[in-house]
Amino acid sequence: MQENTRIEGRNAVREALRAGIRIDSLYVQKDSKDAVIQSIVKEAMDRGSRPLFVEKEELDKRCETGRHQGVLAYIVPYAYAEVEDMLAAARRKGEDPFLILLDGIEDPHNFGAILRTANLAGAHGVIIPKNRAVGLTAAVARVSAGAVNYTPVARVTNLSRTMEELKKEGLWFVCADMDGEVMYRQKLSGPIGLVIGNEGDGVSALVKKHCDFVTAIPMAGDIDSLNASVAAGILAFEIVRQRRFS
Amino acid sequence: MQENTRIEGRNAVREALRAGIRIDSLYVQKDSKDAVIQSIVKEAMDRGSRPLFVEKEELDKRCETGRHQGVLAYIVPYAYAEVEDMLAAARRKGEDPFLILLDGIEDPHNFGAILRTANLAGAHGVIIPKNRAVGLTAAVARVSAGAVNYTPVARVTNLSRTMEELKKEGLWFVCADMDGEVMYRQKLSGPIGLVIGNEGDGVSALVKKHCDFVTAIPMAGDIDSLNASVAAGILAFEIVRQRRFS
Repeated sequence: MQENTRIEGRNAVREALRAGIRIDSLYVQKDSKDAVIQSIVKEAMDRGSRPLFVEKEELDKRCETGRHQGVLAYIVPYAYAEVEDMLAAARRKGEDPFLILLDGIEDPHNFGAILRTANLAGAHGVIIPKNRAVGLTAAVARVSAGAVNYTPVARVTNLSRTMEELKKEGLWFVCADMDGEVMYRQKLSGPIGLVIGNEGDGVSALVKKHCDFVTAIPMAGDIDSLNASVAAGILAFEIVRQRRFS
Repeated sequence: MQENTRIEGRNAVREALRAGIRIDSLYVQKDSKDAVIQSIVKEAMDRGSRPLFVEKEELDKRCETGRHQGVLAYIVPYAYAEVEDMLAAARRKGEDPFLILLDGIEDPHNFGAILRTANLAGAHGVIIPKNRAVGLTAAVARVSAGAVNYTPVARVTNLSRTMEELKKEGLWFVCADMDGEVMYRQKLSGPIGLVIGNEGDGVSALVKKHCDFVTAIPMAGDIDSLNASVAAGILAFEIVRQRRFS
């Protein structure tokens, strides 16, 4: 089962619709004259949903936050994919596999932004660990601006073990750390898995040990690190450059 | 005057301290036995601040959110810099100027993340417009992870006019849009201003007209756009690559 499959309140429901999140059912307060709710109803109907107009009491009963403001939606739970499906997709497209592995990303904004990046960099999927990491929640889906509907996400028990299995399929793994070789000078083409570390602690020692290369974004400034989703974007597009433009 | 110069509550004050935000004065509830507050007091003293221990009533009076939880801090307002200072800093370092212009970034998370990027990409400053954009608030400073203390931010009345003045100093301006030439094939070295558009609408028509080049991040996927701070990071580091590694 997925968490957060219910979305409550005008802004949350409107944002979900705008982000292209699939609505399973939409409950609207029967006598509502609210302009935002009316635009939600219209937009949902344009996409083929049929809103259910109910009494306020029905919404109160279904609502968990106590702030439904006259509207509440159930979204289609996001299904996790299998790693094998990602490899199959790469084969189908005749491309070297390109996967992004998140070693403990905790912030839904970062996960959502990385999903957008994965989609637009042409990655075949994103792999996350089951524990100590944010899953595919409604917040992540919303921030992903629709990418969640296109780019598969797999959740695995043990990231290092998955990496070892993927090495048998020909993948090389690269993670970013200060002590690596500058990314522009490193060969990042071919079948590749890009590992992104946790926001505070970076890549864990165990996962780093399983990486074939350590690469570095060249840093010129005073502070310690880039935002995790920004670093992921810079690394992913250096891979794009080497795969497609050199 | 700056906005948001007062920070209220345990987590907010602790985060501000961790992010290296300069504390002007720290008010602590006299009889507090709270462990978090004690660690805040210790950390503030380690940095040379002298906490003021006051009655709860004093905190209630100064507090705006009603949730001070026994601690409240006034931070040093962030001073905006002048564009001329950024050019002077570049000259001092013997480098071609590299500025980042934000054409209406609204989300403090994006602005803060872009400040981190600007710092680590070695940009000499960030320029924002006075209107319809987030300013240098405490939230932005916190997300910037200390970058706000190193990378100057200037606020100007009219972005296009500032661009025209900077062109006289030899700068070229580039913005990103789908219809541009792929960034890897475009010359992005030399004195440069990188223009980043608004989260929803991209670069405004007027500002785009004042740009010398339109460049594109090559997109392979299904959705419309990258997160604004991720796009800024990818573009800024393509400039770094061309300036320092080619």
